[in-house]
Amino acid sequence: MADSKPLLSRDGDPMAAEALLRDVFGIVVDEIIWKGTSASEKVCEWKEPEELKQLLDLELRSQGEPQEQILERCRAVIRYSVKTCHPRFFNQLFSGLDPHALAGRIITESLNTSQYTYEIAPVFVLMEEEVLKKLRALVGWSSGDGVFCPGGSISNMYAVNLARYQRYPDCKRRGLRALPPLALFTSEECHYSIKKGAAFLGLGTDSVRVVKADERGKMIPEDLERQISLAEAEGAVPFLVIATSGTTVLGAFDPLEAIADVCQRHGLWMHVDNLLKHCHGSQASYLFQQDKFYDVALDTGDKVVQCGRRVDCLKLWLMWKAQGGQGLECRIDQAFALTRYLVKEMKKREGFELVMEPEFVNVCFWFVPPSLRGKQESPDYSERLAKVAPVLKERMVKEGSMMIGYQPHGTKGNFFRMVVANPALTRADMDFLLNELERLGQDL
Amino acid sequence: MADSKPLLSRDGDPMAAEALLRDVFGIVVDEIIWKGTSASEKVCEWKEPEELKQLLDLELRSQGEPQEQILERCRAVIRYSVKTCHPRFFNQLFSGLDPHALAGRIITESLNTSQYTYEIAPVFVLMEEEVLKKLRALVGWSSGDGVFCPGGSISNMYAVNLARYQRYPDCKRRGLRALPPLALFTSEECHYSIKKGAAFLGLGTDSVRVVKADERGKMIPEDLERQISLAEAEGAVPFLVIATSGTTVLGAFDPLEAIADVCQRHGLWMHVDNLLKHCHGSQASYLFQQDKFYDVALDTGDKVVQCGRRVDCLKLWLMWKAQGGQGLECRIDQAFALTRYLVKEMKKREGFELVMEPEFVNVCFWFVPPSLRGKQESPDYSERLAKVAPVLKERMVKEGSMMIGYQPHGTKGNFFRMVVANPALTRADMDFLLNELERLGQDL
Repeated sequence: MADSKPLLSRDGDPMAAEALLRDVFGIVVDEIIWKGTSASEKVCEWKEPEELKQLLDLELRSQGEPQEQILERCRAVIRYSVKTCHPRFFNQLFSGLDPHALAGRIITESLNTSQYTYEIAPVFVLMEEEVLKKLRALVGWSSGDGVFCPGGSISNMYAVNLARYQRYPDCKRRGLRALPPLALFTSEECHYSIKKGAAFLGLGTDSVRVVKADERGKMIPEDLERQISLAEAEGAVPFLVIATSGTTVLGAFDPLEAIADVCQRHGLWMHVDNLLKHCHGSQASYLFQQDKFYDVALDTGDKVVQCGRRVDCLKLWLMWKAQGGQGLECRIDQAFALTRYLVKEMKKREGFELVMEPEFVNVCFWFVPPSLRGKQESPDYSERLAKVAPVLKERMVKEGSMMIGYQPHGTKGNFFRMVVANPALTRADMDFLLNELERLGQDL
Repeated sequence: MADSKPLLSRDGDPMAAEALLRDVFGIVVDEIIWKGTSASEKVCEWKEPEELKQLLDLELRSQGEPQEQILERCRAVIRYSVKTCHPRFFNQLFSGLDPHALAGRIITESLNTSQYTYEIAPVFVLMEEEVLKKLRALVGWSSGDGVFCPGGSISNMYAVNLARYQRYPDCKRRGLRALPPLALFTSEECHYSIKKGAAFLGLGTDSVRVVKADERGKMIPEDLERQISLAEAEGAVPFLVIATSGTTVLGAFDPLEAIADVCQRHGLWMHVDNLLKHCHGSQASYLFQQDKFYDVALDTGDKVVQCGRRVDCLKLWLMWKAQGGQGLECRIDQAFALTRYLVKEMKKREGFELVMEPEFVNVCFWFVPPSLRGKQESPDYSERLAKVAPVLKERMVKEGSMMIGYQPHGTKGNFFRMVVANPALTRADMDFLLNELERLGQDL
């Protein structure tokens, strides 16, 4: 019975699908595209977890729900979600709404394919290669290989695995026990995924040798040399240096040329993401049949440690096509110009103290509340200053007026990290940031 | 200049964003929701790679493109992409279009947040936990933990890493060299990601001991016992058995009870995906500040090996809310009923030979063309039969009438693997499959 119903039944009925999706799209337009990007709306609607659970009625039941209720659920999900496209969302390294990128993602999700073979993703196999070629050209490479990964952490694991395989191809088959103890080098400012990756890849976090960074957060090449010697003296084999261009908190750039010289001298791999197919390949016969009627070199899925893989290239490709290289360059210039403006304005106000002069779009600073101004020499100054950011964060989130991240760092207590990432930002938003912190912290 | 333009400029103008997205949404409705699911349209539009590159004009240039051209590009991307929601797409383990799941994905992409902290994803942190709780209940667990992973391959790596950490917590810090040689066990029918994962995690593919499967593709517990003894005799330490419920090609289910008995006897971890936070945690201070104003146990991002992570729970949650547990159960019953129907019909026709009776929704079979019927005893029968599937596949793809996967398997030559996954399928689609293969292969 169930299997004899016509094609236009509830499952697979395009009319019903269109009706639902039109309504949901309308909600997205109203609540995200308009309200979500409007400075006069809240950036978030804070609720305590227990209250939010009640409001959302998350429980999954046996009985399905009618369409009106489903639409109400969609509205609630959006209402209580953080608006990352809001002009006062400065909390993460990403922010803003690019309509072309979103269009690309809507098409990607609707087509719902996987990136493994030309057979199943002909457009995206070719497109990914074109986007990667263009990205390589930006760093000055005329050849090479690559894949999109599900995030930076997994990209870093690829880097470690590739370096290991390049030095000891046998590792793939025989594992790390067949190898001497290995050592990789990265700065104390590196992303935390390096240690996670070293643990996951079986090297152990002890294999990560932490190189000192200077006061601006840049790896010190002389200390890298010292750490390499130290590791060798302890019987470990150095194989990899992971440099960072734009550290997470400070936005620092390691001195790549000097590090490359050290790597060359010692024959070490420098993190370059240049994929070697043989490293990850396993030749699964059910996906990567060799008797296909087209060039199986296009079945790129065997390069990755995943099997199915989301299509990540379309959003970037479509945005790039629409903006052109020039348009993207303009956005970057504008972000740097706004960063300079913000720093200049900060210096004019007595309540702001820069952690350092920024060289990227990260601006790290303390807000010094009235009661602490001029007390820099007081013995508990740092301790009291470190307590300011959490209080301000709580206040802004509960009001929904703004979101900006803070963290301690090294010996420094909590400071804010502003990131100028959203291309829609203007000087007015920078002024707002400063005024709002002053308003929120005026009684401290 | 660039940074002094008003909020309603090109970047960040909600009116322009709405206009673009409305047009793109209209294209998605016409080309994917309607044509993409219509049996009277092609499932794919095959082009040779070089021709497709020309048709798509993939190159990324310095100059941006006007909206009409961008919309034309969206149409082309869809036109030459495979329609995985088409009722004649049987090529992968996934198929079909669920409007609620797609609605969830469109909202997810529009909100564009990351799953790491309650601060940044309050709704989805709570929702993921609810969905995981419900999934655990389905397998009979009343407690536990979990996360969504970017695919099954990475999930399997988690399983290996967790088992390793549970036995040797020190591995996280000191790496595999501090451990005895390890052995993990899985059947010869397991997913290829197990070996990939073993290589990636530094164990090496040699550490994967392959247990024999019976003629139906199920792991043989007696051979598992034998392999464990063998590994121990060679000085390796068994630590993990990875069982499979629904193998990739045959859809076989390993005998879990018997395997669990073996695991219990030898003290081995059986793949259960029960996440241990300490295994993957790294306590990055800039994301997981401990002085936050809410319960930081809700910042679940440190459970995973990723940092940023896509929101994967909403699509499943919304579909579940709309269908109810009952509705989802109906879909599964219907898929099994259709599978039985297909097998029954296959047996009535002389051109079809089952590889085995299916126990799941995978149906593995050979199409025997007229020239080979009754020639089973001929010495080159198998060799000639193995050449049939690639020819039929090329023909169906070039006509765009249907897509179904094939592969060799063990000593068996190429056979087709039909997967009944799309809830919109009917008996008419099963009949079509059989008729179409007969039509495509009538001259062979």
